[in-house]
Amino acid sequence: MTTADLVGYLSAFLTTLAFVPQALHSWKTRDLSGVSLPMYSLFSLGVAGWLVYGLMIGSWPIILANSITLILACVVLYLKLKH
Amino acid sequence: MTTADLVGYLSAFLTTLAFVPQALHSWKTRDLSGVSLPMYSLFSLGVAGWLVYGLMIGSWPIILANSITLILACVVLYLKLKH
Repeated sequence: MTTADLVGYLSAFLTTLAFVPQALHSWKTRDLSGVSLPMYSLFSLGVAGWLVYGLMIGSWPIILANSITLILACVVLYLKLKH
Repeated sequence: MTTADLVGYLSAFLTTLAFVPQALHSWKTRDLSGVSLPMYSLFSLGVAGWLVYGLMIGSWPIILANSITLILACVVLYLKLKH
């Protein structure tokens, strides 16, 4: 594994992990007032696109990272739509 | 350009574009209550990592998309820290 690969995997881990505290915060507080609906709509669609891209090129890091992010982003989107 | 490339570029466009309404919403309303500080801390760090990765492998789509996302995520992070 090259240094660039390592930086890539670390970045993928961080940008995926980031949505855990947001989803937990939204779930616990049900405070979605500052969260933008267009953001989570566009973002969920984009992450679904990344997942399709990962499946098309057969890249497991892209498939895994975006599957987890898609679930977490959809939790926030669902709570935003509900509240 | 293959279909997979097209899906990749479209996804990059969507996940970057998504942060525009969030940054605008946070800027205008100054309502950051539902926005998670750990999320934007981890996310900004991760996006900065993606930018470094893009520079290391010389990928302009990764460099461009993550430069824009980094600026927008930092705007939200700054507003969250300030309010």
